[in-house]
Amino acid sequence: MRTHRRDATVDLKAAIRAIPDHPKPGIIFRDLTTLMGNPEAFRATCQALADAHQDRGVTHVAGIEARGFIFGAAVADRMQTAFVPVRKAGKLPHKTITKSYALEYGEDTLEIHEDALPEGARVLLIDDLLATGGTAAASVELIRAAGGEVAGAGFVVELVGLPGRSRLEGLGVETLALTSFEED
Amino acid sequence: MRTHRRDATVDLKAAIRAIPDHPKPGIIFRDLTTLMGNPEAFRATCQALADAHQDRGVTHVAGIEARGFIFGAAVADRMQTAFVPVRKAGKLPHKTITKSYALEYGEDTLEIHEDALPEGARVLLIDDLLATGGTAAASVELIRAAGGEVAGAGFVVELVGLPGRSRLEGLGVETLALTSFEED
Repeated sequence: MRTHRRDATVDLKAAIRAIPDHPKPGIIFRDLTTLMGNPEAFRATCQALADAHQDRGVTHVAGIEARGFIFGAAVADRMQTAFVPVRKAGKLPHKTITKSYALEYGEDTLEIHEDALPEGARVLLIDDLLATGGTAAASVELIRAAGGEVAGAGFVVELVGLPGRSRLEGLGVETLALTSFEED
Repeated sequence: MRTHRRDATVDLKAAIRAIPDHPKPGIIFRDLTTLMGNPEAFRATCQALADAHQDRGVTHVAGIEARGFIFGAAVADRMQTAFVPVRKAGKLPHKTITKSYALEYGEDTLEIHEDALPEGARVLLIDDLLATGGTAAASVELIRAAGGEVAGAGFVVELVGLPGRSRLEGLGVETLALTSFEED
């Protein structure tokens, strides 16, 4: 694993726990709870995500349920923007826009409140991990359907060798740490 | 609805959307997405939650999935503490401690990583809403089972007329706005 942003003073790699053979044999799961449990690493991560998008006129940070809420909310607080939750189906109480997308097996559905974004909203999408990009691409569609413009997309970890980045081309993707889902 | 903390310079009440007859007739749902969508109200809320617990030696903020992640993560970032997720069953990748608790119909289960809290951890529990207190009480048990001490508990909204506060007696509960689940 290498660190993408050279100005990081905290070793994010050391703060992320690798869990071999999870959720299935041959896959290494990147557990960010150990990073969140390290105050210096957690703050450095939130700061780096905010810094990477500071000059893009961001008005709203959208966090994807559930781990994207953790980083997204802290980034919104730091950037002094609004926070908008992109939630699993059936969780939002008001009128929603819905988007289903394919998983490895089956599909999943995300929602955003239809009135979550005012005209002119410039939205920074935040999630913990960029892998195949299916969740992020669905979130981009929801942001646009709700009337927002995607000003950037920030992820703590990017799994290389998967199509995530190519599915978000031109959207200003920033990731803090690159790694693999198969090996260290 | 009245504001509990007199020093608030932002009207949190005005930032919370009331949704009548949700999730069922006669119940008013308090929708905090409009508060999150208002940058001044979101920051004032995170600041008030942090301020209320500033002198309690907090080392970790525990947020309850999923809306507790949003406020809890920003509070942890502001207080320069660790963040610990209390998650629904089956979401944490490492070894967990599990606690089931009763809902109105059926039950639900929460988990914490068994190694989430070092010896001496003083934990601030954060969630969006204090109602019957079942979720919060289960989270308190998980924090203690993982070796932590509960240093406080902060909620954005408290529904009065429900037993939430009495179930958390002696734990330093702070809520920012009091309201009812039946009327404005």
